[in-house]
Amino acid sequence: MSLNSFGRVFRFSTWGESHGPAIGAVVDGCPPGLALSEADIQPWLDRRRPGQSRFTTQRREPDAVRILSGVFEGRTTGTPISLMIDNVDQRAKDYAEIAGAFRPGHADFTYQAKYGHRDWRGSGRASARETASRVAAGAVARLVIPEVHIRAYLVELGGDAIDYAASDEAEIDANPFFCPDAAAAARWEELVDEARKAGSSLGAIVECVATGVPAGWGAPLYAKLDAELAAACMSVNAVKGVEIGDGFGAARLRGEENADAMRAGPDGAPHFLSNHAGGVLGGISTGQPVVVRAAFKPTSSILTPVPTVDQAGAETEILTRGRHDPCVAIRGAPVIEAMVALVLADQKLLHRAQCGDGR
Amino acid sequence: MSLNSFGRVFRFSTWGESHGPAIGAVVDGCPPGLALSEADIQPWLDRRRPGQSRFTTQRREPDAVRILSGVFEGRTTGTPISLMIDNVDQRAKDYAEIAGAFRPGHADFTYQAKYGHRDWRGSGRASARETASRVAAGAVARLVIPEVHIRAYLVELGGDAIDYAASDEAEIDANPFFCPDAAAAARWEELVDEARKAGSSLGAIVECVATGVPAGWGAPLYAKLDAELAAACMSVNAVKGVEIGDGFGAARLRGEENADAMRAGPDGAPHFLSNHAGGVLGGISTGQPVVVRAAFKPTSSILTPVPTVDQAGAETEILTRGRHDPCVAIRGAPVIEAMVALVLADQKLLHRAQCGDGR
Amino acid sequence: MSLNSFGRVFRFSTWGESHGPAIGAVVDGCPPGLALSEADIQPWLDRRRPGQSRFTTQRREPDAVRILSGVFEGRTTGTPISLMIDNVDQRAKDYAEIAGAFRPGHADFTYQAKYGHRDWRGSGRASARETASRVAAGAVARLVIPEVHIRAYLVELGGDAIDYAASDEAEIDANPFFCPDAAAAARWEELVDEARKAGSSLGAIVECVATGVPAGWGAPLYAKLDAELAAACMSVNAVKGVEIGDGFGAARLRGEENADAMRAGPDGAPHFLSNHAGGVLGGISTGQPVVVRAAFKPTSSILTPVPTVDQAGAETEILTRGRHDPCVAIRGAPVIEAMVALVLADQKLLHRAQCGDGR
Amino acid sequence: MSLNSFGRVFRFSTWGESHGPAIGAVVDGCPPGLALSEADIQPWLDRRRPGQSRFTTQRREPDAVRILSGVFEGRTTGTPISLMIDNVDQRAKDYAEIAGAFRPGHADFTYQAKYGHRDWRGSGRASARETASRVAAGAVARLVIPEVHIRAYLVELGGDAIDYAASDEAEIDANPFFCPDAAAAARWEELVDEARKAGSSLGAIVECVATGVPAGWGAPLYAKLDAELAAACMSVNAVKGVEIGDGFGAARLRGEENADAMRAGPDGAPHFLSNHAGGVLGGISTGQPVVVRAAFKPTSSILTPVPTVDQAGAETEILTRGRHDPCVAIRGAPVIEAMVALVLADQKLLHRAQCGDGR
Repeated sequence: MSLNSFGRVFRFSTWGESHGPAIGAVVDGCPPGLALSEADIQPWLDRRRPGQSRFTTQRREPDAVRILSGVFEGRTTGTPISLMIDNVDQRAKDYAEIAGAFRPGHADFTYQAKYGHRDWRGSGRASARETASRVAAGAVARLVIPEVHIRAYLVELGGDAIDYAASDEAEIDANPFFCPDAAAAARWEELVDEARKAGSSLGAIVECVATGVPAGWGAPLYAKLDAELAAACMSVNAVKGVEIGDGFGAARLRGEENADAMRAGPDGAPHFLSNHAGGVLGGISTGQPVVVRAAFKPTSSILTPVPTVDQAGAETEILTRGRHDPCVAIRGAPVIEAMVALVLADQKLLHRAQCGDGR
Repeated sequence: MSLNSFGRVFRFSTWGESHGPAIGAVVDGCPPGLALSEADIQPWLDRRRPGQSRFTTQRREPDAVRILSGVFEGRTTGTPISLMIDNVDQRAKDYAEIAGAFRPGHADFTYQAKYGHRDWRGSGRASARETASRVAAGAVARLVIPEVHIRAYLVELGGDAIDYAASDEAEIDANPFFCPDAAAAARWEELVDEARKAGSSLGAIVECVATGVPAGWGAPLYAKLDAELAAACMSVNAVKGVEIGDGFGAARLRGEENADAMRAGPDGAPHFLSNHAGGVLGGISTGQPVVVRAAFKPTSSILTPVPTVDQAGAETEILTRGRHDPCVAIRGAPVIEAMVALVLADQKLLHRAQCGDGR
Repeated sequence: MSLNSFGRVFRFSTWGESHGPAIGAVVDGCPPGLALSEADIQPWLDRRRPGQSRFTTQRREPDAVRILSGVFEGRTTGTPISLMIDNVDQRAKDYAEIAGAFRPGHADFTYQAKYGHRDWRGSGRASARETASRVAAGAVARLVIPEVHIRAYLVELGGDAIDYAASDEAEIDANPFFCPDAAAAARWEELVDEARKAGSSLGAIVECVATGVPAGWGAPLYAKLDAELAAACMSVNAVKGVEIGDGFGAARLRGEENADAMRAGPDGAPHFLSNHAGGVLGGISTGQPVVVRAAFKPTSSILTPVPTVDQAGAETEILTRGRHDPCVAIRGAPVIEAMVALVLADQKLLHRAQCGDGR
Repeated sequence: MSLNSFGRVFRFSTWGESHGPAIGAVVDGCPPGLALSEADIQPWLDRRRPGQSRFTTQRREPDAVRILSGVFEGRTTGTPISLMIDNVDQRAKDYAEIAGAFRPGHADFTYQAKYGHRDWRGSGRASARETASRVAAGAVARLVIPEVHIRAYLVELGGDAIDYAASDEAEIDANPFFCPDAAAAARWEELVDEARKAGSSLGAIVECVATGVPAGWGAPLYAKLDAELAAACMSVNAVKGVEIGDGFGAARLRGEENADAMRAGPDGAPHFLSNHAGGVLGGISTGQPVVVRAAFKPTSSILTPVPTVDQAGAETEILTRGRHDPCVAIRGAPVIEAMVALVLADQKLLHRAQCGDGR
């Protein structure tokens, strides 16, 4: 029920605004006895950290995480793990000029409509800054599922798609775009530079693959693995679409093309001849890689003026100075990874709750 | 937490298998005092009912719903509303031949992997028959949100898209495809006939629009309106992708194209010049139409043999006789409508819980 | 969140009114593969069934349960188990005279105040008839915890307490009061007869002991085993107090009297020298018997007239004809047993979710 | 589902251990627009703060609360309110000698049995220090229910009960025992001094009365107001029993004594002639004062040696040095108040979710 919590058995809650003193996550239901220190979390935060290239926001946040509870003598205790990250590079005055008007594409108007009162400093709670909390919580989730390997990367940016045949996981961290295709990364550099200089922004598509997920995770009907993944990804700032496996492409296949045929595998488990399903059938994992894609809209904070209204209802124009990502999807890749880890950790525990460890 | 429940304040749970004695839904948290009888539910079930054209399964189910609780003297009492639909046209023997093997594209293998035991009669719990329960619950949800008008229809079938310019809501119920474009409906008739005769099946895309949703519904961050819609739609059988507004298309727009500009509206509320956002910003409704699209894969039950393995792990081939929809998305349209209604009813009550009626 | 559901991982929801067509429970999250048929449930319902002695209501309900889903080939499938019990001996007219006035001690006034509309037939949803659904669900819960033995019995009736020294579990089913002390049972026969003839009613205290609960069940801080038991028992009709172990008596002990000393046990686990804690410390089971007590108020439906007001606010008097238990606590004993089983099954699964099977 | 969260719509989660760097609470679902600053919370924390008299622990914690999120320009925004309290007076070394053995009456053994790993410093998560977080969250809850006045006080200590006839709410804050009866407070001073000097401890009973609760709050059947109150109170450290209204005493009344008769009230609402029900019927508030009592066992940390075993299973004796309350119930009174406020705030919002503001 909690509005700011996600998960069922392994559950995290986040709090904090973009320009408040700090942000944080509380992870509840974590198994005891797992080795955990800040050093297990910081590298994941560093991957998402702003200001690492000219293609992300120039806000300088060290994003240093502190563990305030739930760990004793280096191991989790089974009690809530409180993670806190101080906000250090706030410049609320950047936003003063927009305090009174609604930035199109942003949540300014909707927060005002819902709550009648909003923190306009850097989008407040609606800021993508909150996703640092998700990444921190996701780092804990990873420890719960050591059998799973999760990797997210951009497969399309500004409408320019990668060539899967030319892609290589090793390339992902070798460029500022989490792009597995070196040639595409080179093209994207120009695309993003152009958009940034034009005071515009670009959208992109993030793909995430989780390998090592055993068959049997997921809980039909309303805690289906794919439904949880869809909610997890759609809850990330700027995401407007989610696909599992072939996704929208599956709607263009014929039944015999789409159904992943099975052959006897070496270990008794079936071997699938394809993975149109993206590793999920009937809401339960098949044992194949779980494949999720999330579409990010272009950053709404742009230097191009857009017609809008102010809080009094009068017409005006607005452009957003502040410091912003020209393509929010780039830093979205580590966030999608974290959300997938969080869903899978939860489903693993949920599965053993109902079905025991033996399965 | 319930695996087979959906919603937070207005919540429904479903139960039942394809070939058990009955299926049902329990709706909890419904406001009291609403006029409700079977006659308010039956028409929605009739729209989803199988066997109404040659384009849907020939299973003959009257889908007559009974209200077993929660209504007194024609009005809801605020207590759980138990809805039951008897299964009358079961032919479990149709499935006997497939009891021992896993149908590719189906949940047979994953249910076996998860539970070690499965009801193979007509897919058991994984059958789309369960969606009748959702439609029944959705009919109750509609009563909670009389201010909202919800309409789902197919916008693409077998890769053939409608022409939006030639579409008309009035056309939707005039053909067996819930298709708003008469010309497309005529083409689809041929497409589906061909697939059916070839022992194949087709996928499709359902779009659903909800008008009349006021600004302010939705609860960031993990009960965002769009995240709830994504989970709701992805939980429907055969859905592999969900979009809000421009969805994946938004990833190809520039920031100034995507941000919906605002002008002063006649009543003080802003008037949006476009709706790329699909009526949701920051997880909260904008007051514009809420637009959701769901991609359905082609029916996995086909007469074309597909390689598979049996429960012992031996290789075999399988084709699915039974009675099946050549395009499961067709009957998916009323289901998506129901899920959208259920999400919106829940969010309406959740909103007034936190923010009161006055907003 | 569900208002009519209880439990976290092993969860049940109930529906139905006293004088509707049926009542029922849906059990969700049950482990797969458990042998289950109506014969596993019916005996527990029979223990609670009305009309078995002159000390309970004369309403004649066979309380025959049907399993409508979740079981295939005699074993649970892991999908929701829908249990339904038809209401067959309704006499709504008995209640017609009280439709317009509020019976003191009953929920008539509060349901009206909350919902503005109520089913006055036999208290509607507020009737103890709903507890049959709990007993049915509890029978399923017992299968999840075969290592646990649960027994509830009356330890006081009308202020007359049993002699623990003279008590014997074997005696519990040998009298109509679930009383382990034969001498007390004989005295209670007179007490209840007197009250019944006088048009009055009596309260009682039910004690429930669960043995075989291993150390480690319970989830601090807000899913503590004792907090869950307290909610479970307090949710039963007519219960006004709950104790764990020494309960209120513990408030009169000194620290050194209350702390259960430990000695080395035969198997490495500690042996406790006493059980003031009632088997729960810090919200987690100690391995000792879990001891819960629930205080039931006297039945509010009595033939003695009581001053009240009618729906229009006018003063009147009311006496409740219908058919009622002179001491509702008697049939409360099987209900408390069921609730304890439901809590323990849930906590077992919750424990293995977080801590794995190995602990 | 969250193990460390409580509430349904208005929900709080706590984190932190006795000797970690800090403890905290996150309040989710709070209505927007409420005036809130640390000054609204601190006075309630101060009432619970240790070291204020010789009758409570001598640990010196300023318990200064900081609001880290959810408030902007002095008003709540509707987003999570993160409250943090630093631990400043930790002396973990006090506990080193007990790290290896289980203190009887404490959660040492059960945490070890459950998690296989425990923070032994001052009971870690099981410490009553956590209740400061509850009090902080409760202070926010109070703002949600300004119509309600809540007061908790001790009615019995060490078996010595107050004289209700000689009691006065104004007296409660005039002595170190939250005792409304000045004569009893004087006697308790001697009782507690004696116990403290003897290295022992005492139990007590806290009563809490909430006036101003309108008729209609509470949600049958499994979110009943009394069931929620029972869980809330039983989750507090050292509580072993909970009563509503006459509680266990109701089991000794006859039906006509227990049923609170109604007469026409001045404003159309009924006037009750008594309040045996403690303001709750059928799980819904009656409009009368809500009356709850909680029994606290004596503090388990005592200077009297008690037989126990160590982690290796060997027999030993233990006495707890540290700094402890000789009667933990005293500081329990503000905690029970907070829990009652948290339940009522939640139920108020839950009520308007389902039934709207108008009722």
